[in-house]
Amino acid sequence: MPVKLASQLGERKIIEIFLKVFGKPKIKHIPLGDDISGFKVTKDLWVILKVDCFVDKTDMPPGMSFRQAGWKAMIMSISDFACKNVTPKVALVNVNFPSNMDKKSLLDVALGLKDAAKTYGIYILGGDINEASNLTITTIISGLGKLRDIILRSGAKPGDLLAVSGKFGKTSCGLKILLENLDAPTHIKKKLLKAVYKPKVKLNLGLNLKKFGVTSSIDSSDGLAWSLYELSKASNVGFIIKKLPIAREAKIFAEINRLNPVDLTFYGGEEYEIVATLNPRIYGRIKKELKRKFMVIGEVTKEKKIVYIDKGEEVKIKPKGWEHFKTE
Amino acid sequence: MPVKLASQLGERKIIEIFLKVFGKPKIKHIPLGDDISGFKVTKDLWVILKVDCFVDKTDMPPGMSFRQAGWKAMIMSISDFACKNVTPKVALVNVNFPSNMDKKSLLDVALGLKDAAKTYGIYILGGDINEASNLTITTIISGLGKLRDIILRSGAKPGDLLAVSGKFGKTSCGLKILLENLDAPTHIKKKLLKAVYKPKVKLNLGLNLKKFGVTSSIDSSDGLAWSLYELSKASNVGFIIKKLPIAREAKIFAEINRLNPVDLTFYGGEEYEIVATLNPRIYGRIKKELKRKFMVIGEVTKEKKIVYIDKGEEVKIKPKGWEHFKTE
Repeated sequence: MPVKLASQLGERKIIEIFLKVFGKPKIKHIPLGDDISGFKVTKDLWVILKVDCFVDKTDMPPGMSFRQAGWKAMIMSISDFACKNVTPKVALVNVNFPSNMDKKSLLDVALGLKDAAKTYGIYILGGDINEASNLTITTIISGLGKLRDIILRSGAKPGDLLAVSGKFGKTSCGLKILLENLDAPTHIKKKLLKAVYKPKVKLNLGLNLKKFGVTSSIDSSDGLAWSLYELSKASNVGFIIKKLPIAREAKIFAEINRLNPVDLTFYGGEEYEIVATLNPRIYGRIKKELKRKFMVIGEVTKEKKIVYIDKGEEVKIKPKGWEHFKTE
Repeated sequence: MPVKLASQLGERKIIEIFLKVFGKPKIKHIPLGDDISGFKVTKDLWVILKVDCFVDKTDMPPGMSFRQAGWKAMIMSISDFACKNVTPKVALVNVNFPSNMDKKSLLDVALGLKDAAKTYGIYILGGDINEASNLTITTIISGLGKLRDIILRSGAKPGDLLAVSGKFGKTSCGLKILLENLDAPTHIKKKLLKAVYKPKVKLNLGLNLKKFGVTSSIDSSDGLAWSLYELSKASNVGFIIKKLPIAREAKIFAEINRLNPVDLTFYGGEEYEIVATLNPRIYGRIKKELKRKFMVIGEVTKEKKIVYIDKGEEVKIKPKGWEHFKTE
């Protein structure tokens, strides 16, 4: 039997292997594979947990400072709390780095972690450091929630509205500037790079998802297309997208560099927006308020396919996104 | 100003830098730098958290299988729960590995993690994987406890007994066989290597520390000497050790290879025993039961020095132990 390598298996397949070995926990738990994990304390109290890991070689594009790296590492875990309607309360951090890393850089990583924690009201309680070849920053966040308040990936129903908390494509464009040497006018470039270097999370919005009638949600850190496929799988529904949620700067960048705006919007990653399905009745009732927070881009369908209607033509969205270990 | 590198700063100094930046959390918390972290839910309920990270280049000696690596990674975090009298309940895992790692090895890592989780009654709830140059396995464990039941490092009082849950030195000897090519008779060698490859945690003992009148405790993962210094610092006491807790096999190994048994006992690491101080009155009352679980090796002194009485002579124990980034 030929030896299969991680690079041939790809991230999703490897996760499947791990989950199969671990088995389903024999206690009440949040569905494995959702954005957060948790366990029950009482009917009204669950402990919520999330771990995410920032790795320099895949998450730290050229020009990103160590302080921004610390910031981003913390954001990566906060984002998963935001899209689940759970308040992140405390964090632990585990930082691994090579022995030739200098004091100033280490201090900057710590400052970046602290910046993000402070911005989002999180207390850092402890952690660990280790020597390794890569700089990796693992952030673990915990908080408390009620199970009935947590928005899972699995609640979307046909007829719900599909909405996003912001526009897409800036990060993809920024990465193309940094990694593929594409260019843009200075004022555009600045915004595209900012999206890469200092991503933000819409935590305030996230902590009101229940109130806003959100039926399912996920963050877009693996790209919009991938997020839609995850919601589709968990909720057993499809999506029809009628409006392309592309950022103005990304649109201009696409024109200048002759890139496909649909690709830039759907197949990015490292963007921390909330992708949600909304109860249409609640939306109808508080449309004015919600319109400032969510951009409705389509709707949930019974048929499981995911399509974007581009000038009257149906474009199939592919289950493609940010994936470790796979080189295309 | 000359640039200071991590290798010059050393692990303890770098941790200080991080803790200084993070600051003291403005919520009720377990003292930073103790073996576990936690936050208060109610008077009777704290959420307890621990993260620890296994890195192949420092934690995986030659000949250790991937399954043993997974096992050890989980043990590293469980040990901190054991020495604090808190039941570990759930785990998250974050595994980073190079893209050329093969499927069988990944499966073995998962199996090792599951073996340990199952053995100690822990449910794995989720986690993440990433591509990196090293194999690193971060285990995060959470559980619930009452603050008054948690044994901190800071509770030792002069006059308390100093005790350990097992004997030391086997791991140090095993590592000398693997890394420095020393040798031993087969039956001894087997036991020394087993200590390296499949360390165990005395969780049952750990979950009875309160009952047994333990006043302070720590695990010995950074070496016995280091653990004593940590207890000394947190409790503001010293120790006089009258009995050398050396394992029989380590003693024989020391004789064969002309090594100092005191060094082997005190300056090892990667051993997961509980180092505890005992209330002498409670010890007196249940001496028979406790003698099977704890070996009393000395006592707690008011004077802050740590000494071992070796055949009537006072040997100063140095604050030396397993430390990343420092090469002696």
